[in-house]
Parts: sequence; C-alpha cells; structure tokens
Amino acid sequence: MAAKKSPKEVRKAIEEGLFTSQTAGMCPGYAQGNLVILPRAYAFDFLLFAQRNPKACPILEVVEDGKYLSRTAKGEKVTTTIPKYRVYKNGILTEELDDIDHLWEDDFVTFILGCSFTFESALMDAGIPLRHIEEGKNVAMYHTNIPCIPAGVFKGNTVVSMRPIKAGDVMKAVEITAKYPSVHGAPIHIGDPSAIGIADIQKPDFGEMVAIKEGEIPVFWACGVTPQGVAMHVKPLLMITHAPGHMLITDIANDALKG
Amino acid sequence: MAAKKSPKEVRKAIEEGLFTSQTAGMCPGYAQGNLVILPRAYAFDFLLFAQRNPKACPILEVVEDGKYLSRTAKGEKVTTTIPKYRVYKNGILTEELDDIDHLWEDDFVTFILGCSFTFESALMDAGIPLRHIEEGKNVAMYHTNIPCIPAGVFKGNTVVSMRPIKAGDVMKAVEITAKYPSVHGAPIHIGDPSAIGIADIQKPDFGEMVAIKEGEIPVFWACGVTPQGVAMHVKPLLMITHAPGHMLITDIANDALKG
Repeated sequence: MAAKKSPKEVRKAIEEGLFTSQTAGMCPGYAQGNLVILPRAYAFDFLLFAQRNPKACPILEVVEDGKYLSRTAKGEKVTTTIPKYRVYKNGILTEELDDIDHLWEDDFVTFILGCSFTFESALMDAGIPLRHIEEGKNVAMYHTNIPCIPAGVFKGNTVVSMRPIKAGDVMKAVEITAKYPSVHGAPIHIGDPSAIGIADIQKPDFGEMVAIKEGEIPVFWACGVTPQGVAMHVKPLLMITHAPGHMLITDIANDALKG
Repeated sequence: MAAKKSPKEVRKAIEEGLFTSQTAGMCPGYAQGNLVILPRAYAFDFLLFAQRNPKACPILEVVEDGKYLSRTAKGEKVTTTIPKYRVYKNGILTEELDDIDHLWEDDFVTFILGCSFTFESALMDAGIPLRHIEEGKNVAMYHTNIPCIPAGVFKGNTVVSMRPIKAGDVMKAVEITAKYPSVHGAPIHIGDPSAIGIADIQKPDFGEMVAIKEGEIPVFWACGVTPQGVAMHVKPLLMITHAPGHMLITDIANDALKG
C-alpha cells in the first residue's frame, strides 16, 4: 500500500478487503482514530467516561443514529472502513474480523477517539525519530496502574503507548505533543516503567516491542486502547473496537487537531 | 444577602429558604452554574448535545448516580442548593419551586453548565461596566435563529444573553471573554439583533431588559438557558432546570475556568 494514497483511497482498499494490516505511518498528515462501538444502554456512561478522561479518550466523532460516519470519513460505513475489528463479549475478546457489517444492530452507538499517530508526524518533522515506524511495527502499548476517573459502569486503568526517545529530545517531545490535546496531548509518564505498574517493558500488552537503545528513555502517552482495557474489566455484554494499531484513517488533517 | 459571603454560606441560606432571588453579581470571583436535570433515558442525547454545542452548554459537572454534587458544590444536594427551579413537563413550564427534593427520582441525571456570570468579573475588572449589575437586574436573554448542532432528540436554536457595551470597548470585551471557553467564551454576535432573529430587543424572552444607551452596541453571548429553549421545542417528558438568573453558586474560582 503506497503511503501517498489518500485516506479515501486507503479506506476503499480496506473496504474491498485488499488491506487488513496495521496503519502506523500511513497517510502522513491525516489523523487516525480509535473505534468503540457499544449498545445504546452503555452509551451515556461511555460518553461521560470519555469526557472525564480526555487524555485517554479524546472524542473526534460520535454517531448516535446509524453506521455512517460524517466528520471523520464522510458517508462511509464504520462497519467496513477499518482494517481489523475486535469483538468483546462480556469483556472477553471473542473474534477478530475484517468486517462487522453482519453484527450491526440499530441501537449501536459509535465513538471515534483521537490517536497518538497524529502527533508522530509532528515529532518526526522536528527530527525526533520513532522506532516503531523505522522498524515497520505497531507501537507498544501497556496496561498501567493509573486509574481513569470512573463514569457509571466504566472504570479501570489507563492504557499507554510507549516510544523510546533520546534523553536530550524528551522535553522537545513533551512540548510538541502538548500542542495536540485532542489526540492524547503531552505524555503522562516519563522513564521508570515500574512507577506506573508496568512489570516488564519487554512484554507489551498490545502491539509490538521495539528496542530501547542506550541513552533513550521510554516515554508514555495515554492511549485510545484504554477503552479495551476498561472493557476487559467492566465486561459490557458487547463492545466492538478496532484491533490495536489497525486504525480508522480519517479525512481530518493533523494540523486541524492542534489545540 | 451580603455579597461578601462565601458560596457555601450563600448556598446554606438558599437551602434554608432565606434566599430565593436571582444571583447576578453574587459571590464575585466564583463561577455560577446553569442546571439541567433529565431522566436517564435522555441523558446520552443531552450529554452529546452539550458536547457538540460547547459555547451554549459548557459542562462543569455531570452527576450520573444520585443527587449529590461534587466538583461544583461538594457533598450538597442539587435539589435544594439553587434559589429557584423550573419544572418542564412535555416542554411546558408547569411550576417554579424553591426546592425539588420531593420530585427526585433515582434515574435522574444532573448537568451543571458554565454561566457567563464568570466572565463578568473579568469584564468589570477591565473597566467595562455591566448595565444589569448596575441596575440590580437579571441579564436579558433571547431566543435566536442560530441553530444548535442536533444530538439524538435534542435540537433547536441557541439562547443568548445580551450586554450593552460601549462601541470602543467591544473588541476588548471579545478578547477578555474569549479567554473563558468553558463559560461560553467569545460573543456569538455583535450588533443588529434582527440578524440573529431577535424581533424586538426591548422584549427579552428570559430575564429583564436593560437600557442600551447612545454609543453602546448590544453584544450577544451563547447562554446556558439554551437547554430550556430546546426543551420547549423537544418536549421531553420531564426536565428540571434553574429559573433563569437563579444560578448554582459554585466553589469553582472563575480563574480556574480560564482556558
């Protein structure tokens, strides 16, 4: 898949089943989005949860009446436009699917949350290399002991994404990402993984491990996979998400999300 | 009621039935809040409506499980801590009450929205006088033809508050209020009332008229009474609000709402 294709072209390839891989580094300049689909009975609690935890769950779009996106991917079906979906039943991951159209129910509500991939372009433009992009991998993500603010039935800890950054670049990375509050913003932790409850940095809970080299510090950002971590804890009857790293590639320019 | 009493003291007087008047100009330095209480069946649609229309409906607090406030008035009952309430049934104002404790149902959800009174202190500190405070009146509010972004069953037009400002001070007033995005922010209209569907500026739909003097321009801000205007349109089975101008006096410092 050529990186220079437009988001619309890439989504068409996804819809046609020609592309089912992770999307890190694709369509530079365009925001990517995390997906959460829930039955309406959970929608108020989840919207409130997202509002109370905007670093982990920054909202780009909510679709309350049907399966068609508007702001993020105008007129396209949320059920076919993402390369890989996960189905959680009672908090247990039961299926990974390329298409969820057959699962759609009229009472489903869709949430698209901002993704840290947006600020990655800005980091790279500033001369801060990103190991997982260099290595063609999905970013490494971890459960932590950092509690989210609960809302209704939703409670649990924050999931973070980790990027190794040269010690001398860390403050620059903080400054740059702080400018993007609607896609997770500044890091929530710098350095020692054990301080936020990560027992083994070599074993991510989602995504893939990348090398942390001499002179680099692991830097952690709140991650849009948090709702999946929370779902495992809260066990809603049904919740459909993207597969980590397999994002919605949106029509929203990264620059439009600068706060 | 001495203006120098603390928010907690004023709320105690309100709870004891000693104060039932409008609150403009009270407890300077502290934010005031608009109230919306809805049965849970409407809560998701309303939260989404507020999120999509943050200028009219900036959220300060949501209470999803019970009648006790936390962020805005720690541990106090939302049913007794506001000087005057309005009860709307099927969109029709049926009662004004000083206390709604007897109406409380377990499925009620409470929303506290920011109020333009917060930026009034900043305007006055900058030497911009406010006529309704000088005259000891409630601010003048109007229905407009400016549509809100709909969400679920909630749709309708924005309600605005109006303050006459000297022509030479208007831009200063815009700059100051723009710094308070969580309490309506910058004006949404300046000048000609008919351009936003106000037929007669002398006849506010809520609150009281104040004189617009020679050399002054009417300036309009989105107003937290918008949900009441919308309720008249949407006709939810039940909706309880504050009476316009009779606000929740919160413990939140105005400065904490500077964005």
